[in-house]
Amino acid sequence: MKVEIWSDVVCPWCHIGKRRFEAALAQFPHREQVEVEWKAFELDPHATSAPAGQPADRAGYAERLAAKYGSDLAGAQQMIDTMTAQAAAEGLDFRFDRAVRANTVDAHQVIHLAGLRGVQDAVKERLLRAYFTEGEGVGDRDTLVRLAAEVGLDADEVRAVLDEQRYVGAVRADEAEAQALGISGVPFFVVDRRYGVSGAQPAEAFVEVLERAWAERSPLVMAAGGSGDGTVCGPDGCSV
Amino acid sequence: MKVEIWSDVVCPWCHIGKRRFEAALAQFPHREQVEVEWKAFELDPHATSAPAGQPADRAGYAERLAAKYGSDLAGAQQMIDTMTAQAAAEGLDFRFDRAVRANTVDAHQVIHLAGLRGVQDAVKERLLRAYFTEGEGVGDRDTLVRLAAEVGLDADEVRAVLDEQRYVGAVRADEAEAQALGISGVPFFVVDRRYGVSGAQPAEAFVEVLERAWAERSPLVMAAGGSGDGTVCGPDGCSV
Repeated sequence: MKVEIWSDVVCPWCHIGKRRFEAALAQFPHREQVEVEWKAFELDPHATSAPAGQPADRAGYAERLAAKYGSDLAGAQQMIDTMTAQAAAEGLDFRFDRAVRANTVDAHQVIHLAGLRGVQDAVKERLLRAYFTEGEGVGDRDTLVRLAAEVGLDADEVRAVLDEQRYVGAVRADEAEAQALGISGVPFFVVDRRYGVSGAQPAEAFVEVLERAWAERSPLVMAAGGSGDGTVCGPDGCSV
Repeated sequence: MKVEIWSDVVCPWCHIGKRRFEAALAQFPHREQVEVEWKAFELDPHATSAPAGQPADRAGYAERLAAKYGSDLAGAQQMIDTMTAQAAAEGLDFRFDRAVRANTVDAHQVIHLAGLRGVQDAVKERLLRAYFTEGEGVGDRDTLVRLAAEVGLDADEVRAVLDEQRYVGAVRADEAEAQALGISGVPFFVVDRRYGVSGAQPAEAFVEVLERAWAERSPLVMAAGGSGDGTVCGPDGCSV
């Protein structure tokens, strides 16, 4: 069974939703047969990253929120408090006061590389923690190289990927797929390309959809049956 | 709609099947909405490539077939004649007398790169023609770099991919997926992870499965509906 999760590194509900999904997976008996893939979604493709080492940029998350969404400061602060409390309930220490604004196209490229190298979940988790708890600049290349290397990627390879912008196309492909599937907000979970779950739902909701999808999982329906396996090549040669 | 095709570069029915599938696609009214992805399958992962520039290795395809599969030479030649005739009927010029034996793990890595760069079909086609018609050594790295560059890949990038063996993991992942889906011979076509078509079926069979899958295509079923889009972040901010 395959679960694809569209998500951004700077998306609070994505980190909270990841914990809830993990809780569901931990109690799902067939978890060993579940493959998870993290897909790219940029909340704001036009975001600029704060310059490295400028702590001034770290302040004012509530002000930025209020300005961006036209709410007042109190409303923005209330939103932050709610998300911080929900995060705490999942064992996450959200420190919006430290958050450094970032464009995430580079982070998503590193996460794509991590998928190829078998350490995608570790890298995704590391970057979320860096942004939400540690106040790291996840739009900064040196920072990304350091963080990715901490959890198993090769620093030189990460740097080469970012220098060449090697996986921009893969990020854009994920985003085009999201659009084709009608995904406008994240986190968004897709199970076997059949079931969609929008948002950081409670763990029970994820358990339910995993169980439903598992019960209904089906082998491929073999179409064009007449000639069957007529003309194939396999390890033992080609049929004629 | 997505069609994934497991295939090898040295698989005769894969080249013939590609033409038949293309013929089906050409007459399918919704072809613009069909995405094709070429997936790796090695007929013989232990194959050794003939040394570059050794024309002696080019001879004796029938002998190699006969030895490998324990048939007699006449039987092997008959198999070759049948496949050559079927290929000719699809406009392909199979020259088994020129074929250079090759391990294809590097070719599959180049095809994976081509997928990331948006030229996968062109590269797949170029390598098939090189092997079946032109007697090129598709297990040879210099040859792969040259052929891939002819159809739009960057020669330096192809060389770097092969030097680093960058996408071996992706090739193995394709093969593991094939195994999970019960695919033991190629070509094998999977439509929307729902329908499977084994072998180089006639074009009409592909048209039929494309039409069936199109009629049954469904948007995602939204599960865990209660809280709906409760807690997501989108371009306009996060809900609380």
